[in-house]
Amino acid sequence: MTAEHPYFPRDAHLPHYVASTLDVCGAFTVLGGAVAVLMVTAGVLIGRATRRVSCKDRAVVVWMLVCAGIHMVLEGYFSFNHRRLAGMDTVLADLWREYSHADSRYLTSDPFTVIMEGITAAFDGPLAAVCAYGILADSPVRYPAQLATSLAQLYGNVLYMGINYMEGFRYTNPHPFYFYGYFVLMNAVWIVVPAYLLYDAGRHIYRGMLIAQRAEVVKKGC
Amino acid sequence: MTAEHPYFPRDAHLPHYVASTLDVCGAFTVLGGAVAVLMVTAGVLIGRATRRVSCKDRAVVVWMLVCAGIHMVLEGYFSFNHRRLAGMDTVLADLWREYSHADSRYLTSDPFTVIMEGITAAFDGPLAAVCAYGILADSPVRYPAQLATSLAQLYGNVLYMGINYMEGFRYTNPHPFYFYGYFVLMNAVWIVVPAYLLYDAGRHIYRGMLIAQRAEVVKKGC
Repeated sequence: MTAEHPYFPRDAHLPHYVASTLDVCGAFTVLGGAVAVLMVTAGVLIGRATRRVSCKDRAVVVWMLVCAGIHMVLEGYFSFNHRRLAGMDTVLADLWREYSHADSRYLTSDPFTVIMEGITAAFDGPLAAVCAYGILADSPVRYPAQLATSLAQLYGNVLYMGINYMEGFRYTNPHPFYFYGYFVLMNAVWIVVPAYLLYDAGRHIYRGMLIAQRAEVVKKGC
Repeated sequence: MTAEHPYFPRDAHLPHYVASTLDVCGAFTVLGGAVAVLMVTAGVLIGRATRRVSCKDRAVVVWMLVCAGIHMVLEGYFSFNHRRLAGMDTVLADLWREYSHADSRYLTSDPFTVIMEGITAAFDGPLAAVCAYGILADSPVRYPAQLATSLAQLYGNVLYMGINYMEGFRYTNPHPFYFYGYFVLMNAVWIVVPAYLLYDAGRHIYRGMLIAQRAEVVKKGC
């Protein structure tokens, strides 16, 4: 039997599949537009912050707000609609149908993908927003939120990429555009940046806890 | 075809399966003995610590050292030997064959299980030992290590239990002894304790970062 969809593995069971309205250019325009709106929002919030935000922290605010938006809206949408996503006629379903060339598990309600995305939408997303708030408001919540967000993103993504690797990338269209352009490149971003921010948060928390420890000793000594 | 092994699903492909030498009492004696050795080691280290360790922190040292041992030895052994585990004639393979009544994914090299256990052995295990060291040596590394260990344990376990739930517990022997005694009870421990220790670490880090922030302000003001 020939599969009536364009995804891999070719025998993936997708009886409810309906082709997208958006083409690949349309999908990138929508996604790029949404990311641009999040970046502009981050810029406005940085401009209105009561403290001076360093260049590095500005980049972290932008990153965390883009993550919060993607995790809560795009991945949240997947979490609520994964069972019927392949046949839905909405812009967000079109985006998922496009990405699914790199990973058909998003259209088949694969249990690992559903739970990992549920955690990402419900936990990583709000926590990324808390981290951005922590930077803008100079709150002590910033680094623990940065550590937790980045560790969760990294853990989820290592498992996500690792399982596909162990299964011989059977869920991925082998065309270099989908394999490297979508699967490797897009996911590598959520490995590299969280790994750095995890290290950065660990370093700052260690230093902060050392200062706090010394301050407590001085206080007790008084 | 009748499966020539006692695991669920009954048609799980385990051609290399060989029955254990240890029975269930033997398995519990070995595991209990190993945990007791880890607890005694924790007790000795607490007794030799140069600072006074509070009751709660003593419990955390015991917990983290037991976790470190289980993650690095038992789960490390699984990570290195998962392909041939069902047919191996060793005590650790016997323990895994016993637990596999609650989850046959440990004998079939299930990709999620292999990667999740690899992360647990290589990351959570050493980090749990670092957390115990942090408490005993009064090092600022304690709470970031506690946060990272507990979050990773919680993330892995929620995914682990969630996937089996979404697949109708098909990997678990439905007998209450295996379902509740092994699958639910054993794993619930690694949900409840890490959830509390995650909250505890977050609270302490928040407080520490607040003290550090104030100390920096005072320093700048001088």
